[in-house]
Amino acid sequence: MTAVAISEPGGPMVLKPEQRAVPRPGPGEILLRVRAAGINRPDVLQRKGAYPPPPDASDLPGLEAAGEVAAIGEGVKRWQVGDRVTALTPGGGYAEFCVVHETNALPVPHGFTFTEAAAVPETYFTVWHNVFQRGGLREGETLLVHGGSSGIGTTAIQLAAALGSKVIATAGSAEKCAACAALGAVRAINYREEDFVAAVKEETDGRGADVILDMIGGDYVDRNYSAAAMDGRIVQIAFLNGAKATADFSKLMMKRLTHTGSTLRPRSVAFKARIATDLEAHVWPLFAARKIAPVMDMIYPLHEAWRAHERMEEGAHIGKIVLDVS
Amino acid sequence: MTAVAISEPGGPMVLKPEQRAVPRPGPGEILLRVRAAGINRPDVLQRKGAYPPPPDASDLPGLEAAGEVAAIGEGVKRWQVGDRVTALTPGGGYAEFCVVHETNALPVPHGFTFTEAAAVPETYFTVWHNVFQRGGLREGETLLVHGGSSGIGTTAIQLAAALGSKVIATAGSAEKCAACAALGAVRAINYREEDFVAAVKEETDGRGADVILDMIGGDYVDRNYSAAAMDGRIVQIAFLNGAKATADFSKLMMKRLTHTGSTLRPRSVAFKARIATDLEAHVWPLFAARKIAPVMDMIYPLHEAWRAHERMEEGAHIGKIVLDVS
Repeated sequence: MTAVAISEPGGPMVLKPEQRAVPRPGPGEILLRVRAAGINRPDVLQRKGAYPPPPDASDLPGLEAAGEVAAIGEGVKRWQVGDRVTALTPGGGYAEFCVVHETNALPVPHGFTFTEAAAVPETYFTVWHNVFQRGGLREGETLLVHGGSSGIGTTAIQLAAALGSKVIATAGSAEKCAACAALGAVRAINYREEDFVAAVKEETDGRGADVILDMIGGDYVDRNYSAAAMDGRIVQIAFLNGAKATADFSKLMMKRLTHTGSTLRPRSVAFKARIATDLEAHVWPLFAARKIAPVMDMIYPLHEAWRAHERMEEGAHIGKIVLDVS
Repeated sequence: MTAVAISEPGGPMVLKPEQRAVPRPGPGEILLRVRAAGINRPDVLQRKGAYPPPPDASDLPGLEAAGEVAAIGEGVKRWQVGDRVTALTPGGGYAEFCVVHETNALPVPHGFTFTEAAAVPETYFTVWHNVFQRGGLREGETLLVHGGSSGIGTTAIQLAAALGSKVIATAGSAEKCAACAALGAVRAINYREEDFVAAVKEETDGRGADVILDMIGGDYVDRNYSAAAMDGRIVQIAFLNGAKATADFSKLMMKRLTHTGSTLRPRSVAFKARIATDLEAHVWPLFAARKIAPVMDMIYPLHEAWRAHERMEEGAHIGKIVLDVS
């Protein structure tokens, strides 16, 4: 099969097509004929050598993929050859075939193309766990989403708004802010022009945000403590501006904040399966009703994965960048 | 009545006895004839002008007191004049009489003197909420307690050990470490001689602590992130070394830590009542069986409250400093 591998740590051009053996599904696993694969920030870090894959995972990049079931492993219950699924993968999505555990796959949502379906898993699993489970966002509460126009950001805005929260987003241009507002943010803050702490206070009558989803870090850590409401929860899922930061922790104590975070990839198959079950129950119906849908930025052919990475690193994208593997 | 007031913000000597009117219990409140009152770190901050009392609270210091019920307000159900109780007060404990809500008072534990009883509320309410409720410490988990020989520290060690956790404590001298070990800490780390991060790792086979109770702050914040286990919880209840600090938050994300904190005083009467109910059910039986008991440092007469503060600020105490108000 054709796969795109990381030939050595480095810039986008180290992503090179090569021929690989088709992997075999083990017990409980399915072999996916990949039709589309999503691009995610951890792929970029992995390409740079900064985020090595777990020991038992494929060395190929790609954490989500959609396609047809091409073969099933021993004991697989839910899927048959030919089923159309989208899955969180343990790696290896940038390829014509990919092995995933059957419980980490879900049906392609009703009416979705493969490229749309491939744009779903990584951001929806991440947002579901971090915003709703870890952050405990409840109906009527206010969510502040940084990086509002990213794949994660657009997902968080749509999902939280659809489930009854008030969403405030930050983004880096007027165009990106307009996209956030169109997705349901009651206020989109251009961080280059406006202080998000003041804007959040203004938008919440001084109360602050109940949950903050942050992938920026750096000086945002202390500013998040300022922007959070009493008993607020701040969930850290990345550090685009660096993980070392200075903060005034008296705000954390006096406001009884909870600062936490997580990464999805190292979690167990069983953990991811539980999220999949939740998503199928609560989010798939919203997809089927077309109340929400992934925001698609650009689609590149598999062998141009390097262009997809280049686009993500330029930071001009709005929503998801996906590879077409048909 | 005689009360000790903060004549002006400043050193211990600003604590001066004066004559005040005996306060009247409102609906649901009881008037306590104070026999003993505990000294706590927030009293010191209040004396310095750094921790002003809430608007509706007494301006007199003192957050816990034990004595007899001298009068009851309208609708009081549980207590009668003459009952021996110990209570979390809204302030005003450094006095011959003090008003508290009936739900924030508990019976003097079986066999306890008033001075022992007065040493209980502030640290037990604080430890119960922060270590067990907020930190979620479970049987079999490891608790790291900083300031192990303080009132809070000695309480946390005893309570967590009695409830089946493995406790590691830090303290600043061999004598203090010996006290922590005698109370049930499996390891007491003299922080002047040993790095607590390395010691905690060693004591937990590299796993780290599941819950960390910290009142130090400063560079302990980042070191706590290093000493914590996967899914660890760090609860901040004070900042003796300062609240502004630099930390590497990638540890918080990669280990899925939860960093939180709280202060007891601003919480509602109802919130404190719920903790009181828990303590009476789970901790009062341990007192009655003399399985645990507050660690008493020194007792001073009410009019020498300034000496009690001096002793707390010198930092040589082990356990609780209490005022005798008989």
